[in-house]
Amino acid sequence: MTRLINRMPFRIEWGKCDPAGITFYPQYFAWFDASTWQLFELAGVAPQRLIAESGIYIPIVDAHGRFLRPGNLGDDLVMESHVAEWRERSFLVKHRALLGEDPILEGEELRAWVTKHPEDPRRFRTLVIPDAVKQAFA
Amino acid sequence: MTRLINRMPFRIEWGKCDPAGITFYPQYFAWFDASTWQLFELAGVAPQRLIAESGIYIPIVDAHGRFLRPGNLGDDLVMESHVAEWRERSFLVKHRALLGEDPILEGEELRAWVTKHPEDPRRFRTLVIPDAVKQAFA
Amino acid sequence: MTRLINRMPFRIEWGKCDPAGITFYPQYFAWFDASTWQLFELAGVAPQRLIAESGIYIPIVDAHGRFLRPGNLGDDLVMESHVAEWRERSFLVKHRALLGEDPILEGEELRAWVTKHPEDPRRFRTLVIPDAVKQAFA
Amino acid sequence: MTRLINRMPFRIEWGKCDPAGITFYPQYFAWFDASTWQLFELAGVAPQRLIAESGIYIPIVDAHGRFLRPGNLGDDLVMESHVAEWRERSFLVKHRALLGEDPILEGEELRAWVTKHPEDPRRFRTLVIPDAVKQAFA
Repeated sequence: MTRLINRMPFRIEWGKCDPAGITFYPQYFAWFDASTWQLFELAGVAPQRLIAESGIYIPIVDAHGRFLRPGNLGDDLVMESHVAEWRERSFLVKHRALLGEDPILEGEELRAWVTKHPEDPRRFRTLVIPDAVKQAFA
Repeated sequence: MTRLINRMPFRIEWGKCDPAGITFYPQYFAWFDASTWQLFELAGVAPQRLIAESGIYIPIVDAHGRFLRPGNLGDDLVMESHVAEWRERSFLVKHRALLGEDPILEGEELRAWVTKHPEDPRRFRTLVIPDAVKQAFA
Repeated sequence: MTRLINRMPFRIEWGKCDPAGITFYPQYFAWFDASTWQLFELAGVAPQRLIAESGIYIPIVDAHGRFLRPGNLGDDLVMESHVAEWRERSFLVKHRALLGEDPILEGEELRAWVTKHPEDPRRFRTLVIPDAVKQAFA
Repeated sequence: MTRLINRMPFRIEWGKCDPAGITFYPQYFAWFDASTWQLFELAGVAPQRLIAESGIYIPIVDAHGRFLRPGNLGDDLVMESHVAEWRERSFLVKHRALLGEDPILEGEELRAWVTKHPEDPRRFRTLVIPDAVKQAFA
């Protein structure tokens, strides 16, 4: 079974860099997030529709990045992302950013499958991920 | 030996939240970064002076966050940060954000002690961390 | 009649700067936004409560900044903000950032007083601003 | 004489939106900035090369945005940008973001042509813009 992989090209723009001339590192997680959204869209499970139609959100539980080489101003990278593991109520997305053939950074996001708590909109409640969703990524 | 701890109050402002009404998670790493800077200033080793006077930067090598509870719009938190481990050419900063007594998230940053490569300003070279720096955090 | 003025201290942190070592300018508007929120809180009209209790939002209509001097890494500034003009369905907030006595930048935000459109949550509808709100800023 | 126009497609991603589900407005200025950079690259005057080869920066002097309609989560827009006016030591970039045929917002950036002050790297000095640069945008 092949895995669905999203490939998101992105550029390290001026406003994403710090005074050292390299990516301000929290920005890499913003790209992780954007790529996860694109991956879900690619699978036909757009997060925006999950929210609008089912009140489902996919908030972060755990995020990890390993920064192998600095990403410099003007670099054109590609973020490759796929779901590496489905659990009952959460899932693990793996990301890797490449400059040409060279990996610049890699990381993981563990995300939960939740809905707003019926009695307190400031809290969430996990739900079981439907099999149909999991199958959409195969 | 007690460890130097920085405590940085911060608010989850409107512009830091996503459409779910909670912190857009990469922002937590921006707060990690800001708190690491404050910790260094507290130790008398302001990163800005390291750069200006010695050409030393402290870029990220590895970053990790565990998000225990959502941070909601308007929450007033405190980020507690300290250096948990000094290695020869890198160091580990531990962070924990509290809402009152409740931990909301925790994480680590592994950072290197580097200078710009003399022949290529787009690359860095690690250096040995001086003992005097390490002692400033005790 | 004296005007209510919010004074928000802020620091130009590493992650807010670009490779030139000065504030990446969109960040100034994020500080305008944060200071407008604080001003409303100071007046006892917290935007967060407006949303939760009345479904009122105060989105931007027009924003303008004049950048008099660069804001450098590490500068500690104060943003001074007040409502300069109340119109029937919108209001003008004036902002000025000072480094000590020196103005670094100044600007305005025109914001509307709106609620979500009953038939389309992706659109807004302006409402008349209650007199009680206007008086809270005097 | 036709003007060089840059057209930059962009999506209003999750992390660019606020709890009202629309773009957090400072982000529009970040897109202005990115589009100005692309425009300069299109003209063969990449800002990154200006910095590396001539020590020239193009910092903001004045920025203005008019927000005609909210930009919603998931909208795919195009930013159209061109230099509307060249002055001796500064230039005006006009921007307009379209959703299909509909303008969502428009604005201007006035930027200076500067170099770092030889005696104080925290200050800038304006320079006369070379004619060759101006002609590259025609």
